[in-house]
Amino acid sequence: MPSILVFGHKNPDNDAISAAIGYAYLKNELAKKNGEDVTYEAVRLGGLPPETEWILSENGIETPRLIEGVGEGDKVILVDHSEALQSAEGLENAEIVEIIDHHRLGGLTTAQPLRYNAMPVGSTCAIVAREFGIEGIEMPKAIAAVLLGAMLTDTVIMKSPTTTNFDRDIIAKTAEFVGVDPVEYGMSIFKCRSNPAELPVDKIVNADAKEFELSNGNKVYIGQFETVDLQAVLGREAEIREAIKALVAEKGYQFVLFFATDILAEGSQFICEGDTEFVNKVFGIDVTGKSVWMPGVLSRKKQVAAPILAA
Amino acid sequence: MPSILVFGHKNPDNDAISAAIGYAYLKNELAKKNGEDVTYEAVRLGGLPPETEWILSENGIETPRLIEGVGEGDKVILVDHSEALQSAEGLENAEIVEIIDHHRLGGLTTAQPLRYNAMPVGSTCAIVAREFGIEGIEMPKAIAAVLLGAMLTDTVIMKSPTTTNFDRDIIAKTAEFVGVDPVEYGMSIFKCRSNPAELPVDKIVNADAKEFELSNGNKVYIGQFETVDLQAVLGREAEIREAIKALVAEKGYQFVLFFATDILAEGSQFICEGDTEFVNKVFGIDVTGKSVWMPGVLSRKKQVAAPILAA
Repeated sequence: MPSILVFGHKNPDNDAISAAIGYAYLKNELAKKNGEDVTYEAVRLGGLPPETEWILSENGIETPRLIEGVGEGDKVILVDHSEALQSAEGLENAEIVEIIDHHRLGGLTTAQPLRYNAMPVGSTCAIVAREFGIEGIEMPKAIAAVLLGAMLTDTVIMKSPTTTNFDRDIIAKTAEFVGVDPVEYGMSIFKCRSNPAELPVDKIVNADAKEFELSNGNKVYIGQFETVDLQAVLGREAEIREAIKALVAEKGYQFVLFFATDILAEGSQFICEGDTEFVNKVFGIDVTGKSVWMPGVLSRKKQVAAPILAA
Repeated sequence: MPSILVFGHKNPDNDAISAAIGYAYLKNELAKKNGEDVTYEAVRLGGLPPETEWILSENGIETPRLIEGVGEGDKVILVDHSEALQSAEGLENAEIVEIIDHHRLGGLTTAQPLRYNAMPVGSTCAIVAREFGIEGIEMPKAIAAVLLGAMLTDTVIMKSPTTTNFDRDIIAKTAEFVGVDPVEYGMSIFKCRSNPAELPVDKIVNADAKEFELSNGNKVYIGQFETVDLQAVLGREAEIREAIKALVAEKGYQFVLFFATDILAEGSQFICEGDTEFVNKVFGIDVTGKSVWMPGVLSRKKQVAAPILAA
């Protein structure tokens, strides 16, 4: 039976993995209902975040298979991304049959029409949950718990400015169905992230990092680390700075911007290497050689990547 | 009150105009329902096709305003296209807030997330009609008739290979609601297209034509003319050939491919100027200096543009 691969971006975060699991489940149920001879397999392009490991094990859901890339003729569904730079190696040889996403439009082209379902909302998992309703497919409790977890991590428990009324509604409904309080459930998920004092520095820098291409053709790398213990991260600023300086040198990035987000204090500390002047100009700050606290900045997409890409 | 412009592609066909009208209506109703202080205006980037003129007048619907282009800070919704080449002048300065489409992904980028709703189905109007159902907005009969008309022209009365079961279902439901037989209604629409023996040649060549960019960066122009009187079109082959030769010279296209589709005989006659070798190779034909009958070819998107763009 032909199999279609469903995956989120490189350096997957909880939303990328959970959306792939939820959407592959939905598509398999729809295929059964419509008598279509095809299966959908959730896979992943990188390591499992610690909170995802915990949620999957709590709900008895198998970890998606790790793939190295995709090949000629593979049919794929992209979730939680729509930029070639953030996707599987070999994507140009595969056939993209669907995209389900909540990010900006990333410049991909296809030869054939496809299903593209993007919404400017807080998480891809919220869009996946909406599709269950539209298609009239029953959601098992375990899948609901996985989707809810990612709706909460991606919106930083509804504190991120990316959170819409649509997110709040679907989080409330899904939490009621799962039988948990959304804020308590969100806090328990964030707490199972590893202690930043003990993590290898590359796990901090690359925990949730993405490449972007500026309009001048140069690439930049923007990494975010969400934590309930900002001081533990900042205690390692020198190490982090060395690591991102090395990335600039190795990969030729115009700059690497790393920011540690304190989800309780609701702000982020910026650390930047490379063309820091660019970043200074975009945000009206001075991040050259020192780190800068940015109150209220919680969302990479809306508050960090968007102004950089629009500059 | 801020106004958002809703428009289809240049050289608009019936689907491009009708989808803009239907979607602007839906968005205005949704804004009223949600108490949002915004209006949506259907506009157009070119002349009205004769069948659209007839349908709008039959249903008492105002002709969308013609615009020359869009400007800095305009908010826009693209319907029935997603390629900059086919869109409004100045699009790079506007903010695309939504795209609703049934074509391939055309390489646009945005700085901000957006609503993108594409499906690989026969018409954009079918997707617009589906949205009325999902959003629970009542569809007036006049809007239903306009949407139905475009579902029928864009699928060549359900004969085009782009027609899916989804299209057949929504056409049947909408026709029942309007109170017409879909095939009879479709034929009456096609019959009000002008007599190709009497049309100025540029109206034939540009009736439904779009620019595409090949992977080598060259541009091509692919025009389709659907008719119930193929012989009248072919009687003007020499004139058509001169017109498309002039387009190749003026615009620097790698080639211009014009094809006249006989909706009764279900096939198309290809006429090509410029790099005809490219087209010969893609289709395994010899269209150099002569026209070629292609039985079964009804869809530009699926049967003409897709193989050219994939080559």
